[in-house]
Amino acid sequence: MPGEFELIARYFTRPVHKAVLGVGDDCALLQTAPGMQLAISTDMLVAGRHFFADVDPFLLGHKCLAVNLSDLAACGARPLAFSLALALPQAEDAWLAPFAKGLLALADAHGCELIGGDTTRGPLTICITVYGEVPADAAALPIPTQALLRSGAQPGDEVYVSGSLGDAALALLALQGRRTLPPNLLQAARARLEQPTPRVALGQALRGIASACADISDGLLGDLGHLLARSHCGARLEVDKAVPLLAARQAYAGGSAQFDSDMGARTALQCVLAGGDDYELVFTAPLAQRSALAALSDTLGLPLTRVATIEAAPGLRLVDAAGHAVAHDFASFDHFATRLALP
Amino acid sequence: MPGEFELIARYFTRPVHKAVLGVGDDCALLQTAPGMQLAISTDMLVAGRHFFADVDPFLLGHKCLAVNLSDLAACGARPLAFSLALALPQAEDAWLAPFAKGLLALADAHGCELIGGDTTRGPLTICITVYGEVPADAAALPIPTQALLRSGAQPGDEVYVSGSLGDAALALLALQGRRTLPPNLLQAARARLEQPTPRVALGQALRGIASACADISDGLLGDLGHLLARSHCGARLEVDKAVPLLAARQAYAGGSAQFDSDMGARTALQCVLAGGDDYELVFTAPLAQRSALAALSDTLGLPLTRVATIEAAPGLRLVDAAGHAVAHDFASFDHFATRLALP
Repeated sequence: MPGEFELIARYFTRPVHKAVLGVGDDCALLQTAPGMQLAISTDMLVAGRHFFADVDPFLLGHKCLAVNLSDLAACGARPLAFSLALALPQAEDAWLAPFAKGLLALADAHGCELIGGDTTRGPLTICITVYGEVPADAAALPIPTQALLRSGAQPGDEVYVSGSLGDAALALLALQGRRTLPPNLLQAARARLEQPTPRVALGQALRGIASACADISDGLLGDLGHLLARSHCGARLEVDKAVPLLAARQAYAGGSAQFDSDMGARTALQCVLAGGDDYELVFTAPLAQRSALAALSDTLGLPLTRVATIEAAPGLRLVDAAGHAVAHDFASFDHFATRLALP
Repeated sequence: MPGEFELIARYFTRPVHKAVLGVGDDCALLQTAPGMQLAISTDMLVAGRHFFADVDPFLLGHKCLAVNLSDLAACGARPLAFSLALALPQAEDAWLAPFAKGLLALADAHGCELIGGDTTRGPLTICITVYGEVPADAAALPIPTQALLRSGAQPGDEVYVSGSLGDAALALLALQGRRTLPPNLLQAARARLEQPTPRVALGQALRGIASACADISDGLLGDLGHLLARSHCGARLEVDKAVPLLAARQAYAGGSAQFDSDMGARTALQCVLAGGDDYELVFTAPLAQRSALAALSDTLGLPLTRVATIEAAPGLRLVDAAGHAVAHDFASFDHFATRLALP
């Protein structure tokens, strides 16, 4: 069994190119280019809470960095580096080798260097802090940055969601034995849960286009709700535009009506609106950006779907195609709430 | 019981002054001054491993930031900000209020702002990433920085230790019932274990004086050993100069001989050399810096004790006052080693 320092040397020490100094000293050193700011985000993943303890370590390595890169994407930042703190019940090569492989493959794909961290014995817990770069903007008010913030939405702006929503939550329901999915749909949905794709290129491209942005980790209602609260406004969300974002429902044999019949009529709504673990971006933009966003969607090969409109009145109002209110009691995911988001 | 967002708002959201953007968005934003680099360090503390689960949460709040500030000190960096990730079995005000108080009191004392993080339910685990500022130095080789590194020691340099060593380890022995200390000495030693003082001012003052530096978290032998390995050299450590660094032994009623008799002759040696949890600095400096270091010690009111000399031959050689080799089998603390440092 490797000791702590051997473990760090074997799996987590790599040459750095963007950082001034990487793993091995008391601190790592980063220097941003003139006029740039460092965007920083931290996520902690706990076994049994955020992932099954027996999940494939390669996929877990991917996911724990992906959820952090998603926060950089939400700010429009370019990934630079990350720190990794890891508590492990035991230091096993059979677990560490694939974990490091999954982690570092995603890191390499985004040019995001591992610059430091900590390893210790303890209940399996992964804490990653990620560093990205965004241009400063001395003229921007009230925050002198070009970073995408949650606080910039204006009444009249339209609300977009990238990619698909709710499939990760549907996969979780299936893995918990609460729904049954055809194997091909389960496989696709499970990939969304276990190997999410952070929208890093989209986030950077949205600088100058989006007025506000957040990533969807706790469910659309919750994360859009936080964006609205920080922007001091509300939104009217068209449920009929959101529900088709559940890819498994669209691909279901027999069609979406058959999906609703087999899975329960409200399952799609619940997964899309309050599922969580999507790691898509929800963002707002003025009407004038519609054509720019259509072009960006084409360039990235990524659907950008308008689902809501920003209104001055606070709160999030769900409406159907006819404009009638849709009643719901979906809660977004809260790690300390007593009520869980899924039935 | 507060929910996740209420908990963050209540205990961990404060206005920022040094950061561009603090808690509440997907990322925090930091901008270093021109010519400065960011020094970054991460430590993860696990209940039952790094602290007793029932430790006073005020002291725990202090300690988990102190151990990170100690890493900044070891690099000669000025504290700027930190991120906090916290897994908690439950969100209890009775625990969170004093924890936040201890944490933020130390943060305020060092002008170190809380800029972000994560909270989740899980086994009690605290992961802090701290950010400090050091001047760049384009002319410095091989790393263009004024930061103190572990890699700069040269044969002929002298090795210094700040403050006192081993009292934290002695307190741990006493709390585990393996030694008995008089109440006043236990109290003082326990304060060293539970409320360590990061040597932040010393670290910054050592820039331009010390040739290499590390903080002592895993025991002098281990941390000096890492410094020597990174510097590709060795050292000759005079045990008789190190042992008096155990404050409890010097203050013992009846004197140090009585301490050795009551506690076991090798207890002091073991605590000082391989105890860990000291959070003092071990650093090297050329002979020419002796007077500068004496003046610095006076200014800071902090002893700086010469304990060893750097030699070209790799390895750490322990010698007594007569220059004879001292046999030992002390291991430094390794979180995955099967052998523990303390008897």
